[in-house]
Amino acid sequence: MGKESKDTKGLTVKKGENFVDWYSEILLKAELADYAPTRGFMIIRPRAYSIWEGIQRYFDGILLEKGVQNAYFPLLIPDSFFKKESEHAEGFSPELAYVEQKDEGQKLAIRPTSETIMYDSYSKWIRSWRDLPLKINQWCNVLRWEVKQTKPFVRTREFLWQEGHCVFASEDEMRDNMNEMMIEYQKMVEEVLAIPVITGRKSQLEKFAGAAETLAMEALMPDGKALQMGTSHSLGQNFAKAFNVKFSDVAGKEHYAWQTSWGFSTRLIGALIMVHGDDKGLVLPPRIARNKLVIVPILFDDSKDKVLKKAKELENKLKEFGAFTDQREGYSPGWKFNEWEMKGIPLRIEIGPKDLDKKQVVVVRRDNGEKEIVAEKDLGKRVPLILDAIQKDLFLKAREFLDSRIDSAKDIKELAKKLEAGKIVKIYMCDNKKVEEKLKEKTGAASRIVEEHAKEGECVVSGEKTKTIAYVAKNY
Amino acid sequence: MGKESKDTKGLTVKKGENFVDWYSEILLKAELADYAPTRGFMIIRPRAYSIWEGIQRYFDGILLEKGVQNAYFPLLIPDSFFKKESEHAEGFSPELAYVEQKDEGQKLAIRPTSETIMYDSYSKWIRSWRDLPLKINQWCNVLRWEVKQTKPFVRTREFLWQEGHCVFASEDEMRDNMNEMMIEYQKMVEEVLAIPVITGRKSQLEKFAGAAETLAMEALMPDGKALQMGTSHSLGQNFAKAFNVKFSDVAGKEHYAWQTSWGFSTRLIGALIMVHGDDKGLVLPPRIARNKLVIVPILFDDSKDKVLKKAKELENKLKEFGAFTDQREGYSPGWKFNEWEMKGIPLRIEIGPKDLDKKQVVVVRRDNGEKEIVAEKDLGKRVPLILDAIQKDLFLKAREFLDSRIDSAKDIKELAKKLEAGKIVKIYMCDNKKVEEKLKEKTGAASRIVEEHAKEGECVVSGEKTKTIAYVAKNY
Repeated sequence: MGKESKDTKGLTVKKGENFVDWYSEILLKAELADYAPTRGFMIIRPRAYSIWEGIQRYFDGILLEKGVQNAYFPLLIPDSFFKKESEHAEGFSPELAYVEQKDEGQKLAIRPTSETIMYDSYSKWIRSWRDLPLKINQWCNVLRWEVKQTKPFVRTREFLWQEGHCVFASEDEMRDNMNEMMIEYQKMVEEVLAIPVITGRKSQLEKFAGAAETLAMEALMPDGKALQMGTSHSLGQNFAKAFNVKFSDVAGKEHYAWQTSWGFSTRLIGALIMVHGDDKGLVLPPRIARNKLVIVPILFDDSKDKVLKKAKELENKLKEFGAFTDQREGYSPGWKFNEWEMKGIPLRIEIGPKDLDKKQVVVVRRDNGEKEIVAEKDLGKRVPLILDAIQKDLFLKAREFLDSRIDSAKDIKELAKKLEAGKIVKIYMCDNKKVEEKLKEKTGAASRIVEEHAKEGECVVSGEKTKTIAYVAKNY
Repeated sequence: MGKESKDTKGLTVKKGENFVDWYSEILLKAELADYAPTRGFMIIRPRAYSIWEGIQRYFDGILLEKGVQNAYFPLLIPDSFFKKESEHAEGFSPELAYVEQKDEGQKLAIRPTSETIMYDSYSKWIRSWRDLPLKINQWCNVLRWEVKQTKPFVRTREFLWQEGHCVFASEDEMRDNMNEMMIEYQKMVEEVLAIPVITGRKSQLEKFAGAAETLAMEALMPDGKALQMGTSHSLGQNFAKAFNVKFSDVAGKEHYAWQTSWGFSTRLIGALIMVHGDDKGLVLPPRIARNKLVIVPILFDDSKDKVLKKAKELENKLKEFGAFTDQREGYSPGWKFNEWEMKGIPLRIEIGPKDLDKKQVVVVRRDNGEKEIVAEKDLGKRVPLILDAIQKDLFLKAREFLDSRIDSAKDIKELAKKLEAGKIVKIYMCDNKKVEEKLKEKTGAASRIVEEHAKEGECVVSGEKTKTIAYVAKNY
């Protein structure tokens, strides 16, 4: 076997030509995921898992700031729990997986989400106003037995997520929490993952099963399909009544509590790959990359030791950026360049004997291939600036794409045509389940978010007057 | 409801009088765990989960040092996978929980451990010596349908753990990895959790199902029962042969790979509670406590603002120790002292108007109640020293207990008597399944670890000559 037998590792499919195959190929070749032996499941390989760890580290910081504590609730939920809140039951029952074992004659389902089992405990833990607000989050795996076509990270039967579940004494605090968490979500996705989103309220048809109100953030993938990136729900007192979550106020009077839940999942990794990846492989925004730069020494027999020594010196100097040196023998520099481009390392530093003489290095950006010669002494100052520029440029590029794809339509025909062109289309639409079902029937698409407009217009489905604007798009 | 209605929260059972009930009570009153609606499952509440997070943070640092990467494999494992390695199959099949859904006609089990599903992937990922060593770890939940009595943290049907799975080109590297991870485990448990352990090899009867060799660390609980705290296995080529994990060497020749697996679980939290807890509640070793100190201001109407201001100033100064101020109104200082003692905060700082005048505070150790007056200006220097002393003293106290309970026996009768007294008893024992089965039958106990002695002795079960010494104890 030749030393560079892996040289055929480059992507064989172009992102712009066959997006579906490009995605499948990048998952495998950038070693992000693999298909599991069981259909609809995925293996999250270390390069993708480290993205998830980065997200966890960032978001755990936010949780700490907000006074939310992490905990862990059981994987298995008694069947009767799902029946307590009727909309929730209806929404989730088709996707439940039960184990063969029973407990006291009752079937046990693997959690698809944990409202029911957490609120059963909340009803025991919460006694008075002193116990509120209660703010708990859990990082865990959930299972939803999808019948739709699955796709690693984007839609799988098992995925990892965080689910936050808070309890408040008043409706206002509940609503504030729902809003503030959506703001944090948007901030994380836009500032850390460099993915622009639109946010707003979910329609009556699209809101979470059991919620009073759902906020969502939606990103647009390069194929013109929207991807839901996270949701924040106010549950009103729906679950509090179903699970008897009550508190006594200062005067000793009992009230049902007000609750929120909010979550995002490993789907974010799929969005990141799709939005930023290119024909050379993965592109990681610097803020989420554990290793923000790779040093590739250009080795010749007569200067090898000197160059390697310098590379190691630079690696050490740039430790805070997770710098590492690729000093493997038997691979050409070009092969190494391809390898780290495939794996998305934001910056590459090349250093050869001539650079050594000139006390300089070559710095290459992963996102646009721009090369820059940087004097060794300026490296510590220059690297963070270039990384910031990459982060910003990735976001702006994605932002321009999103903006260019937001359009509007006056009637169904225009809407259908623009959906076909991969756009997010703003229409007037009555926020009413029947009306939106009809929209889905006619176009195959539903609203991603809705918002209220100052001016009234005519619903493109029913013809009725409405102030509700729906953002409609095809979606994953 | 009176303002201090929770005043009755103290433990009603003494650790030394009824250890079983004391443990149940401390779990609930220190808000560490709760019983789940499904038998054998537990809810890990934030105060215990933060211990797990501390363990994760520490151990993720070790993994990084050792070049082990985190990943995530599916929850559900095809039934046929368990049948591939016969000892493994036999060991785990009684505890498997299957879901009702099938995949291509095949039953799917919830993972009890992930050797099989991980090595199926490894066989695809590993091609040549260049792909080795492969070192992957996962943090996840596992399910084992225990029929034994369960106990939160100690034995539950679902628990959280880490499982590391490494592949090597040679037997030596494999053995080194097994050894080095056990050394890291012991270091973590002794230095961070302050729990002394004995470590050694597991006997033929007690080793992991499918392993060539198992190393274990065992701690002794105050009731005289041993608790297995973590294991590190060399799997030899057993799984490599069952799952076809092969690599080609530099010359292109194919070989089966050598593998290790190693893990510890949320059981460590149970050990921590049992070993260090006392009649006032939880005692957290400082190194694992997120909040290492609580400041309780002694508030009187006329000096309240001044005292609070100083408390906040100290909190800020002691931020690196996770200091927080309990400034809740309507609770007496004494009530607060009890509260934070129950929850195990290592240090308490009391500050009242008189202390303010004298520019001093009172510092109280959770572990032994010792009070010390510390000048405000010395606090930053004194606090870490006291925390270190607590950490050390907790370990030494537990070490003395463990040492005092290690004994030896010359025959079965003496052994049985000493086991009854809650001791770890060293005996000569042939390392042979049949012999140890007989020991179990006669004493209800098995070996926790075994080691080779320089001098031969007589097996207390079979009477045969052997160099193997077994450490026998009752166990959880």
